[in-house]
Amino acid sequence: MDFLRELRLVFVFIGCTRLAGSDYPMDTKFLTLSTRGVVLAFGGFSADVNYRKRLDPKLGEAFLTTNQPGATAEGLRQASRIGANVIQADWIQCLPSCSPVEKGMGLASHFATIAGSLYGVWVDSKTGSRFVDEFGDRKVCTDAILGVINRGGKALAISDQNGVDEMEVVRPGLTQKILKSGALRQFASFAELAEAYGIDRKSLDSTIARYNELLSAGRDADFGRRFDKRAKALGRAPFYVSEMSPKVHHCMGGVAVNVETAVLDVETDKPIPGLFAAGECVGGIHGAVRIGACAVMDCLVNGRQAGLSAAASPKA
Amino acid sequence: MDFLRELRLVFVFIGCTRLAGSDYPMDTKFLTLSTRGVVLAFGGFSADVNYRKRLDPKLGEAFLTTNQPGATAEGLRQASRIGANVIQADWIQCLPSCSPVEKGMGLASHFATIAGSLYGVWVDSKTGSRFVDEFGDRKVCTDAILGVINRGGKALAISDQNGVDEMEVVRPGLTQKILKSGALRQFASFAELAEAYGIDRKSLDSTIARYNELLSAGRDADFGRRFDKRAKALGRAPFYVSEMSPKVHHCMGGVAVNVETAVLDVETDKPIPGLFAAGECVGGIHGAVRIGACAVMDCLVNGRQAGLSAAASPKA
Repeated sequence: MDFLRELRLVFVFIGCTRLAGSDYPMDTKFLTLSTRGVVLAFGGFSADVNYRKRLDPKLGEAFLTTNQPGATAEGLRQASRIGANVIQADWIQCLPSCSPVEKGMGLASHFATIAGSLYGVWVDSKTGSRFVDEFGDRKVCTDAILGVINRGGKALAISDQNGVDEMEVVRPGLTQKILKSGALRQFASFAELAEAYGIDRKSLDSTIARYNELLSAGRDADFGRRFDKRAKALGRAPFYVSEMSPKVHHCMGGVAVNVETAVLDVETDKPIPGLFAAGECVGGIHGAVRIGACAVMDCLVNGRQAGLSAAASPKA
Repeated sequence: MDFLRELRLVFVFIGCTRLAGSDYPMDTKFLTLSTRGVVLAFGGFSADVNYRKRLDPKLGEAFLTTNQPGATAEGLRQASRIGANVIQADWIQCLPSCSPVEKGMGLASHFATIAGSLYGVWVDSKTGSRFVDEFGDRKVCTDAILGVINRGGKALAISDQNGVDEMEVVRPGLTQKILKSGALRQFASFAELAEAYGIDRKSLDSTIARYNELLSAGRDADFGRRFDKRAKALGRAPFYVSEMSPKVHHCMGGVAVNVETAVLDVETDKPIPGLFAAGECVGGIHGAVRIGACAVMDCLVNGRQAGLSAAASPKA
């Protein structure tokens, strides 16, 4: 089936569906496949600006995405057109810690969420203060960072050499790569760092002192962050900074399915015969805020189940 | 067209749509209408537990609704089945200040949002403290009240006689009606009130004293509420309380339309010929949190436009 790779978009018809010739480009070619079942696995629509901003108007052109350019909504539109129940489509997640300097997913988000969160602090350049539990969920952190940006500040992830050393244990070589791209910057002192981002020096010093005091007490009375056991007081030069700007990352919504991964009809809530789905194109798996890495388990478990279900489906 | 009143549900077909006989009850009667245009105006689905909880899983059977029992999703399911783009469907609003003692919308919510918000305070029975800006939007207040309830407290709207006097100016006779239904209770003193709801007496006294202090200073440093000019220090007996428990109230989501109220196709984003919509069944009008009373303007303005558009539509 090598020729399928050439298709820009597959229109899916199950049984007798609407088919008005004028809806399709003149050169559309129709292909009839007789199969046991079809598994939808077209992913999310994070890269589809027009589609996503109708669902969440703030996610317009100004937002970059971590996704590849093909993460568009044609598949979901087709699924809806043939009667699939599309649920929770406006629960669209941003990855909060991305760098605006990098394209796509980039690498600096790993700095911000390892060195900057586990072992450092996030600071608003305008106030010099922390502004959120750096371990908050992706929605909490995204909303907080957007708040900082909308008030005219920059949201900065800051670590010292201890934090970067810890990051190098789990991601060896990462620091040099991000420094090279310009998404990570290094400073000899907090004074230099404050100067570079126009942060009030006294505010930053007081923020660092307060963080060290909370860390030493073992309880984040300001934002409720759970401190990592290996975190040390901030102070060992050099210091590192990445700027954060949320990028559209994952669509929690999609077609409704049952536990056998059968796609459910919008009219009856019953399975559409022969139609299955797995992965990001399915809605209702991850709640309103997907937790990092859980999409992998979702794809493995439900992808396997979808294959089994499709194979066990009666031949059309 | 009196017979249309007998229909439980109208299946809507536009042009050539899927039509498999087995999908419909044996006694289904089909009716072909040749019209200039069809205006969808089926409202929201606040009363449809199965449909709403698939979109927002917390809104299950435990939640009452302010809506009439016919506020179900058949219309929206049909609109989706014939190709309408359904957007923002999981943005479902609760009215935060409703009384669990009353059925449906009730009257006590007016006490809570006039006497209790403009001239009184909302208190968590478990802590004896205020817990939210009583003028926060419906989502903020709903989330805060659910938090109180989930932690085992009761969310109470409290006013004194001054607040109730002010309410009687705009809603004459309301106080007696709610007292009669049991949704509003009257107490001779804060001590009696605290006793009735198991509130720690000292905490309540300190909450009232703090509120009076903030009101006198003209700035709510605790929750950022904007004080009404006519609000007076709390203290003039008797005192009044209503318990609050959010009820499902309004669906912000629905079919996508253009400014002419034409329903947009899920596949092409272009108008579906002859199909228009207005009112709560339309999505994207009110953002994520509708503001009180704005649905009336929506219905008036867009309902008129839908009629004009349908009348101007070419006869099928």
